[in-house]
Amino acid sequence: MASQRGFGAGGPTLADVGESGLLARLLGGRLVSAPGLLLGPGDDAALWQPPAGRVLVLTQDALVEGVDFRRDWTSPHLLGRRALALSLSDLAAMGAEPAWCLVALCAPGDTPLADVEALHDGLQAMAAEHGCAIVGGDVSAIDGPLVLDVVAGGTVVAERALRRDAGTVGDVLAVTGELGRAAAGLRLLRDPALAAGIDPAVVDGWRSAQLDPVPRLAEGRALAEHGVRCAGDLSDGLLVDAGRTAAASGCGAELWRDALPVGGALRTAFPADWPALALGGGEDFELLAAAPAAVLDGWPSALAPLRVVGRLVEGGGVTLRSCDGGEVLALPAVASRHFGS
Amino acid sequence: MASQRGFGAGGPTLADVGESGLLARLLGGRLVSAPGLLLGPGDDAALWQPPAGRVLVLTQDALVEGVDFRRDWTSPHLLGRRALALSLSDLAAMGAEPAWCLVALCAPGDTPLADVEALHDGLQAMAAEHGCAIVGGDVSAIDGPLVLDVVAGGTVVAERALRRDAGTVGDVLAVTGELGRAAAGLRLLRDPALAAGIDPAVVDGWRSAQLDPVPRLAEGRALAEHGVRCAGDLSDGLLVDAGRTAAASGCGAELWRDALPVGGALRTAFPADWPALALGGGEDFELLAAAPAAVLDGWPSALAPLRVVGRLVEGGGVTLRSCDGGEVLALPAVASRHFGS
Repeated sequence: MASQRGFGAGGPTLADVGESGLLARLLGGRLVSAPGLLLGPGDDAALWQPPAGRVLVLTQDALVEGVDFRRDWTSPHLLGRRALALSLSDLAAMGAEPAWCLVALCAPGDTPLADVEALHDGLQAMAAEHGCAIVGGDVSAIDGPLVLDVVAGGTVVAERALRRDAGTVGDVLAVTGELGRAAAGLRLLRDPALAAGIDPAVVDGWRSAQLDPVPRLAEGRALAEHGVRCAGDLSDGLLVDAGRTAAASGCGAELWRDALPVGGALRTAFPADWPALALGGGEDFELLAAAPAAVLDGWPSALAPLRVVGRLVEGGGVTLRSCDGGEVLALPAVASRHFGS
Repeated sequence: MASQRGFGAGGPTLADVGESGLLARLLGGRLVSAPGLLLGPGDDAALWQPPAGRVLVLTQDALVEGVDFRRDWTSPHLLGRRALALSLSDLAAMGAEPAWCLVALCAPGDTPLADVEALHDGLQAMAAEHGCAIVGGDVSAIDGPLVLDVVAGGTVVAERALRRDAGTVGDVLAVTGELGRAAAGLRLLRDPALAAGIDPAVVDGWRSAQLDPVPRLAEGRALAEHGVRCAGDLSDGLLVDAGRTAAASGCGAELWRDALPVGGALRTAFPADWPALALGGGEDFELLAAAPAAVLDGWPSALAPLRVVGRLVEGGGVTLRSCDGGEVLALPAVASRHFGS
């Protein structure tokens, strides 16, 4: 990650090369190919043949400079990767296979062309890693922050789609991977002094979790194949997303603090705050599934581990307990980055 | 049009109601239904069953305040309508039937909630008029201009799709409707004093052409049904778009000034400039088709008229003549609003 060049390359800017010059550089000589793609970028619209027997999965995520990222924290390449990873995480949360994406970039005229090319390379790399093709998009000038808006389409067998409203009272709640790493990374980006005394490789891992998240596509497909019907991703953190899944399913959610999958280094570095980071931080882009406990048996060891962290219960809202049957604890405060609530 | 309330409503702002409050207001109690829609807004992604025997048509258009619109020229309702109309025009240019759209809105925290609700109403109205459903989207704070980014999906029978690369030397070039009206409207919005002495109803019509364009969906489908295989929309003006279609088809384009469909009032109001407005103005969102002349016979009178304005020729580039076989004229200068070229 450290090897990626940051923003602020030299050379010509977007205003120097113009809209047509930018598009020529991004599309020039590049044949976009993907299963079912009949017509790629360059016409009024793309043409794509959906595979038989599957339904389309559609999601959109906008990243705004100053709200979702800062140029001095990341690189154009990582920003491109992250923008698409967020949409791919939504596809993962539906158990879907990625197919295509469209990307709109709004950038000031003084943006270096090389920055936009590096951003596009990052998008391409993430797309290629997950069998997704960039089939169209738009570029616009803006007198303000960078905006990168991605729409991704995937496919799934309709009856296997993972939905937030398919949970039932008694289902266990299980999460993939570890929690709190992206939130810890964000805290260290905001206040680099906090990194003092922590193993640099660990710090780098947390920053990567924030800046270069991995969409859990294989895990989403495995959940669907295991017979799970209810899941979502943890874009807004476990508290918010467990509450959303529970509400959609007409239940309440109970979470168990001592069951949260939080690494030892994170507990040591944030001895008081690790539950808040794990429950409220968001952006880990792990998956949260709700299913009868037996359905989760035999989870493939090659995938990110799946761990039970709570249960869907009668009623509404989210309750935090120390453990299954343990004392009720206060919920940590959670803030949205959008409009302050 | 004049009855639409402008930007700057009173009442609570987005920062007052927060992200969850905004989403509750936009989605609250609203069941989105559309053919094939299995799951609408509210989950990680939407689920949609494509109709058998058709392929998907995908397009994206971002509108940025200060570049593509100004708040003091339009209303939130018209802005919502226009944002979707641009994407629907791309679908029209492929001969497609609209199906669904996703919309991302980036807005500052001090934006009145009522403005965003009016914008959403405008999107809904345009969607409903054309059989399109808003199946998902995203909202984000931004410290800067409003950004509205729309991705629309439609369907078409693959062999009937209108493509820019399907023209042949000898095809006539034909456009729907009239040209230059949206560009005249933009000029009057920029310099209201120019309206002096022009019939107010005419002025209102030109402003409407700029602020509330009509996607030519019925005309696009009729072109496809007539056997036309090559078309595009005039988002960037006839000169640019004829050049784009000709280049994609490996030809040059010849345009005939005296054949341009430009209204009498526009010729009178801009006696020197009407060819520049008609050729370079853009944003009329009319369609440009290339086809053997005989294919255009029997054009339905209920649709916008289709008029021959030139021909695809050997070679490359765009040539302007006074008429078929007439003298070669100088091309008017054309400027992109993005990055100045």
